[in-house]
Amino acid sequence: MGTPARSDPQALVAAAREGDRAALARLISLVESAGAQARAVAEAVGPVAGDAYTVGITGAPGAGKSTLTSALVATMRAGALDAAPIERVAVLAIDPSSPFTGGAILGDRVRMGDHALDAGVYIRSMATRGHLGGLALATAEAARVLDAAGYSWILLETVGVGQVEVDVAGAADTTVVVVNPGWGDAVQANKAGLMEIADLFVINKADRPGVAETRRDLEQMLELSAPPGDSEAAWRPAIVETVATSAGGAGELWAAVRRHRHHLESSGALAQRRRRRVTDELRRLLATRLWLRARGSTEGPAFDALRDAVLDRRLDPWAATDELLGTADDEP
Amino acid sequence: MGTPARSDPQALVAAAREGDRAALARLISLVESAGAQARAVAEAVGPVAGDAYTVGITGAPGAGKSTLTSALVATMRAGALDAAPIERVAVLAIDPSSPFTGGAILGDRVRMGDHALDAGVYIRSMATRGHLGGLALATAEAARVLDAAGYSWILLETVGVGQVEVDVAGAADTTVVVVNPGWGDAVQANKAGLMEIADLFVINKADRPGVAETRRDLEQMLELSAPPGDSEAAWRPAIVETVATSAGGAGELWAAVRRHRHHLESSGALAQRRRRRVTDELRRLLATRLWLRARGSTEGPAFDALRDAVLDRRLDPWAATDELLGTADDEP
Repeated sequence: MGTPARSDPQALVAAAREGDRAALARLISLVESAGAQARAVAEAVGPVAGDAYTVGITGAPGAGKSTLTSALVATMRAGALDAAPIERVAVLAIDPSSPFTGGAILGDRVRMGDHALDAGVYIRSMATRGHLGGLALATAEAARVLDAAGYSWILLETVGVGQVEVDVAGAADTTVVVVNPGWGDAVQANKAGLMEIADLFVINKADRPGVAETRRDLEQMLELSAPPGDSEAAWRPAIVETVATSAGGAGELWAAVRRHRHHLESSGALAQRRRRRVTDELRRLLATRLWLRARGSTEGPAFDALRDAVLDRRLDPWAATDELLGTADDEP
Repeated sequence: MGTPARSDPQALVAAAREGDRAALARLISLVESAGAQARAVAEAVGPVAGDAYTVGITGAPGAGKSTLTSALVATMRAGALDAAPIERVAVLAIDPSSPFTGGAILGDRVRMGDHALDAGVYIRSMATRGHLGGLALATAEAARVLDAAGYSWILLETVGVGQVEVDVAGAADTTVVVVNPGWGDAVQANKAGLMEIADLFVINKADRPGVAETRRDLEQMLELSAPPGDSEAAWRPAIVETVATSAGGAGELWAAVRRHRHHLESSGALAQRRRRRVTDELRRLLATRLWLRARGSTEGPAFDALRDAVLDRRLDPWAATDELLGTADDEP
């Protein structure tokens, strides 16, 4: 029997769990395209999802995220001194569908070809433009599909420019922020944002000048940041140096990720993070579904009249949406 | 009398129209912070808004957008051979609040200091993290404030990485996409996205090698793109070469922007674009207000129970939001 029909998520999930990569690819495509099928996929996946651990890898364009991700995957699969090989690793590369970054992304995908012959590795680029609930919701859904298919480690690679991408990276269990030597000014200027999401820092391209200064900048930032008051207080982000092009430091990164996982699990912070993440996901989905309900009211002659009134300055946008909501006074 | 109190948008609008820059700054801060004041600002601004023309300037980090914007502003203010000086020009620099781009943005803002003594130029960086309706809605609101304050030309400068930023740039009357020599591969890989938003291309840093190839790549892309079927069919994006650091080409860019404006006005396409833009804005605002209404249902013990059911795989996220919506069958 071949891969089940495109339209049957239940059968696709069963096939994906048996190792059918084409079925897995179809499920993620259904998530990407959203629409009526997204719910069917969620229903099929929900009860069988496993307990995958997710690692977000983010950083500015050119930081070497994809090469680093590839090196990390190889290390995870091969095993390290004190860690058994991981049976199944998945990479979700979140493509912000930018008109500007495609060249680099295409190049990255080619590099990921290193794992093309490894049946324990699944790599998927997600084009999320147009997904109804946005990048973050699509990523959560796709991660759940991979989890159900038996991938116990899922790496989420995002280009860290823009709030949306940071949301996605921050939704992982462990978030790795990749910087390069010489990024001191950028680090200083963005202390708050970095501290908010980073569990680990990687100084990639550590064979270039300026590593010591970058490490000092990061350490200074960590030093100055007020001790947080929640249960994650005991964790101080590690700083790992890597040369991803030659896989240098990948073992240290893998060890640091496992140490952070252990910290989260033993402190109870992992459960807390996952509650927060599911809360965010439910809120996004609720907002999306509310919007689907209301969309009908933004089409047709009555809407066109309101729109023209706004264009002609006879109504402000709030007053126009009052009309669409059928009320004027139940919100701020 | 000094600038009116922070809490009175009506008085702030009146003052801003008289040239009070502190009042203008306060109004935009109210838009940024959103919340209860955003509506009051929209109501105060709505009836007095003018007829500003907006130009979006977007491109990848490092393309030289800020320097180019600054050179364009100087040209607009000085006037050109066949164009009178523009009395009031505003620049809204949309900061995606990234943890990675701050260094560059800080540098850009310093460069914009060229216009610090020109009372006809207003430059404002917008930190839109946390705005309820997102970047696009905040930008539309801020542009309306600037319009009401008498700025007849508004330049929207965005870092073009990510769908949100492209949405913002694409919401302008004329959208300028800035590339650099040597970006051929990136251009090729992103034909669709570029064609969708670009009215004009600028090859900035045109004193570097590779200009001819980049121009050829852009021209080839324009050549191959199918002729669109709508009323804007007659426009073929111009390609302008600039060296923004020495203001080279700024006059040509200004002329190209005016040619595009003339094309849009004479073809009726401008009205069509603005109808589309207000439609988008009303939809975003409606979605935001619906979300504000529903947010209360995502807090408290009943919500926590649903969240835990999703965490434990007893419910999928769709079924959980069914409960929150009080229905299961009125949507796809």
